[in-house]
Amino acid sequence: MEKIPILKMGQFLLVTIQVDLYDRLALNFEADLIQMVNKVEAKGVLIDISAVNIVDSFMGRILGNIADMTRIMDAQTVVVGMQPAVAITLVELGLPLPGVRTALNVEKGMELLHSLIGPNGKEETCENDSNAF
Amino acid sequence: MEKIPILKMGQFLLVTIQVDLYDRLALNFEADLIQMVNKVEAKGVLIDISAVNIVDSFMGRILGNIADMTRIMDAQTVVVGMQPAVAITLVELGLPLPGVRTALNVEKGMELLHSLIGPNGKEETCENDSNAF
Repeated sequence: MEKIPILKMGQFLLVTIQVDLYDRLALNFEADLIQMVNKVEAKGVLIDISAVNIVDSFMGRILGNIADMTRIMDAQTVVVGMQPAVAITLVELGLPLPGVRTALNVEKGMELLHSLIGPNGKEETCENDSNAF
Repeated sequence: MEKIPILKMGQFLLVTIQVDLYDRLALNFEADLIQMVNKVEAKGVLIDISAVNIVDSFMGRILGNIADMTRIMDAQTVVVGMQPAVAITLVELGLPLPGVRTALNVEKGMELLHSLIGPNGKEETCENDSNAF
C-alpha cells in the first residue's frame, strides 16, 4: 500500500497520515494531493496526524510545502490531531510550522475550514492568523 | 505507528485502513473501535478501504466482526471505497461480506449512514413500500 488515500468530503479533502512519510511516498503524496485539489476543486484540506508519534525536519517541511502549495491553488490546509510530544519536538527542532494552520481534532479543524471559507465557498479575509504553540 | 486512528466526525466515526491488518493490529483496532463507539456514543462507523489492494479471508472476517459488534452497540457500519479487484477476490474466496453495508465512496457512505439513522439519531425502520407497476 504505497499510496496515502485522500478522501473527498464535500468541498474538503481529508487525509490521515498513518505511515512514515519517507522520501518517495511523501513526494507522491504531495503530487496526488495537489492534483486532487485541482480535480475536485477542493476549498480545503484537512490532514490528521494523530497517529504520528515521531516527526523530523523532513516531515515538517512536507507539511509546510503542502500548506503553501494548496494556498497557491486557492485552498486552505489545516493540520489536526498533533500529539503534544510532536509539537514539542517540532519547536525544539526549530520548525514551528509557520504558515500551517492547526486545530486540536478533526471536528475543530472542519469548523476552522468552514470559518476560513465564506458561505459561497469564497475565502474570507481573516486578519487573525495566530497560530502560536 | 501501531494504531489505526479513529476520527470522530459528529455522531460518526471515520477510519481509513492504510496498512495490512495483521493479527494483533486487527484485534487492537476492533477493540479500540468498539470502545470509541461506546465512549462517544457514535451512531455510525465509516471504514474506507480504498487503499487496500489485497484482501484475505482474515480481513473479510474482521470487517464482518466489526459490523456485527457495532450493530450490537446500536451503531451502523458502512465499508466504502472497495476496489473492484478486492470485490472480485472476496466473492471468489466465498466471502461476500454478508451483513456488511457498503458504498462507493465516503460521500455516498455518509449519505447512507444519514439515511439509516433517523433525524433524532434513532435508527429508522425501513418500511420500503415500493409501488409495483
